[in-house]
Amino acid sequence: MLTDQQILRIPGPTPIPPSAERAMSQPMTGHRGKNTSELISRIRPGLKRVFGTQQEVMILTGSGTAGLEMAVVNTVAPGEEVLVIVTGAFGDRFAKICKAYGIETHIFEEEWGKAADPVEVQRYLQEHPEITVVFSTFCETSTGVLNPIKQLASAVKEVSDALIIVDGVSCVAGTETEMDAWGVDIVVTGSQKAFMLPPGLAFIAASKRAWKKIEANPQPRFYLDLKKHLDNIVKDTTPFTPAISILYGLERVLELFEEEGLEKVYTRHRLMMKMTRAAFKAWEIPLLANDEDASPTVTAVKPADFEAEEFRKVMKEEFALELAGGQQHLAKEIFRIGHMGYCSPADMLQAIAAMEIGLVKVGKKVEVGKGIQAAQQVYLNEGKVLA
Amino acid sequence: MLTDQQILRIPGPTPIPPSAERAMSQPMTGHRGKNTSELISRIRPGLKRVFGTQQEVMILTGSGTAGLEMAVVNTVAPGEEVLVIVTGAFGDRFAKICKAYGIETHIFEEEWGKAADPVEVQRYLQEHPEITVVFSTFCETSTGVLNPIKQLASAVKEVSDALIIVDGVSCVAGTETEMDAWGVDIVVTGSQKAFMLPPGLAFIAASKRAWKKIEANPQPRFYLDLKKHLDNIVKDTTPFTPAISILYGLERVLELFEEEGLEKVYTRHRLMMKMTRAAFKAWEIPLLANDEDASPTVTAVKPADFEAEEFRKVMKEEFALELAGGQQHLAKEIFRIGHMGYCSPADMLQAIAAMEIGLVKVGKKVEVGKGIQAAQQVYLNEGKVLA
Repeated sequence: MLTDQQILRIPGPTPIPPSAERAMSQPMTGHRGKNTSELISRIRPGLKRVFGTQQEVMILTGSGTAGLEMAVVNTVAPGEEVLVIVTGAFGDRFAKICKAYGIETHIFEEEWGKAADPVEVQRYLQEHPEITVVFSTFCETSTGVLNPIKQLASAVKEVSDALIIVDGVSCVAGTETEMDAWGVDIVVTGSQKAFMLPPGLAFIAASKRAWKKIEANPQPRFYLDLKKHLDNIVKDTTPFTPAISILYGLERVLELFEEEGLEKVYTRHRLMMKMTRAAFKAWEIPLLANDEDASPTVTAVKPADFEAEEFRKVMKEEFALELAGGQQHLAKEIFRIGHMGYCSPADMLQAIAAMEIGLVKVGKKVEVGKGIQAAQQVYLNEGKVLA
Repeated sequence: MLTDQQILRIPGPTPIPPSAERAMSQPMTGHRGKNTSELISRIRPGLKRVFGTQQEVMILTGSGTAGLEMAVVNTVAPGEEVLVIVTGAFGDRFAKICKAYGIETHIFEEEWGKAADPVEVQRYLQEHPEITVVFSTFCETSTGVLNPIKQLASAVKEVSDALIIVDGVSCVAGTETEMDAWGVDIVVTGSQKAFMLPPGLAFIAASKRAWKKIEANPQPRFYLDLKKHLDNIVKDTTPFTPAISILYGLERVLELFEEEGLEKVYTRHRLMMKMTRAAFKAWEIPLLANDEDASPTVTAVKPADFEAEEFRKVMKEEFALELAGGQQHLAKEIFRIGHMGYCSPADMLQAIAAMEIGLVKVGKKVEVGKGIQAAQQVYLNEGKVLA
């Protein structure tokens, strides 16, 4: 087969736009020089638009998990009690970070593959008024579920003053995020998902309410000290050496978002989700999440009559097309398709037509053409929304 | 729609493999230094394998047309008569070059969309024993026809001592080329087709028989003087400054051919051709060439009930997928799909699924899913040849 081709359809990292690749390959520059501060000044407004906030969006050099830990150590004071909404492996990660700091951590766990119910979360908070911070994932990457953050934030606010902290790693920039309007206190995301960049940067913003708590919080921190980052970003710099190449890529990606239009970016992601789901429905292969809970950026599939791992292997061998497996107890039970970032409806036509062949190869009885046809029909019915 | 995506499905240039892009972006080096001569020494054996020749393959910095002109000026002495087999725009180009030099040029023209018949060419030569050189295109890019060079060369040799000169620009490295075994005297090709590199280099090899004629030929030439190139290439250099970056890309591409296996490269091209043709047959849209004459690298389509240009426009607007139009009298009558170079069966699944949507958009009555299904079936039936 054609070597040197990789069709990356995992839920991040995603392929990188050629112009972002080019931007990242420009000569290295000093991180305390004018070049870098001008670069950061150009980046700041675009990041705010993606987050839907008037607040500063800080740029942390680290992976998404560093961003999650940053959210924890800056907001939770020793002795406080927090609630973590767990709908999958990344909700679980929030809980693990809290526990690592000895924080008394309430877990509100939903069956993996379902979104958290704001009413039930609200009830839990009413029963536990001592909770000061609520953590939730936005898109749960491990299950392809999009938690209803707007409704969750609203439900929390009705009964509690707890801060609302959101892990938006695998969906911010791929789905509407209105941090200010929804009353979310902290949003964290990373560079390698819908931002279509290499891993290496995390982005994090805090509400005015959060900043009060952060500034009063005695929890020790240094590299992850949000206030240090805030004091620097307003001066177009970072407290510690940033991943400069990725910053150049970020500038370009933010331009691409503007060129396409952020609303269209979100619509494109939703269309790719619908195409993917339509195909699996046509093949009568169970999707892990139902339509209401489905994420526009990643789809998890739970096959009943073939091996997920075998299917992934075939896709890699036949088409160099990489799909993700499951995590934790869903490992080997599911596979996941990323449709985010640098990914178009044409790319999903490719992935779906190829997966249909892969299904035949693993012995799944499918009528060849039926799944891709369903996806094509979704595009024909709804593709004009991208125009 | 997703900006910064271009799906290039024209018959060259083709997309460039990422590792070739990286190879081409290494620091510039002096063309008379050790780096470049070592590079050329690594390239030479691989080029010979692709050409199927023990002779040297010269590297000319120029486009394919420069290579064609090189073939003409080196082999045809003033006063000689030549035969040009014209099956499309590039056969016509050979004729134009000959005429520009005042060469008495016989034209053997076949209806565009058909391959030349060796028997008829043989008959023509028998009637015109004064002909000293026969020019033919291998793949006629403008029509998607592959002329039967092996049979043509054999037929010519039976009745004539004329040199056999072949324009292999749009198929060498995408289809079996056995210059020595077939008794072809000169093969010319370019870097931007099945070699999957940017335009800028032409490759040309000559048989022992051709070298005798070349060395005796008084036709004035300087930059295009093949003997100068031969004297240099055997010393791992070029007579004039070469396009060094593309040479680095060429080294990488030749490695990729070895990794995949040249036979598999050819099989992949043939499979992509079959997938493409199966789709158009399922859609009942006429192909310009019949199955026997079809090229593994490019397919020309002659729609009867929709506008080729309108279809190309829709494909560009909807999917950023670029198809080629027709040339000369076939302009606006046909469109052409490149399936060569850095292009995989998965890429053809994408192009075909997207074209199916494009056909609906231009009002062609097609059953959605039928064409892509036919292509998928070809892959399922024959794809194992790539394993």
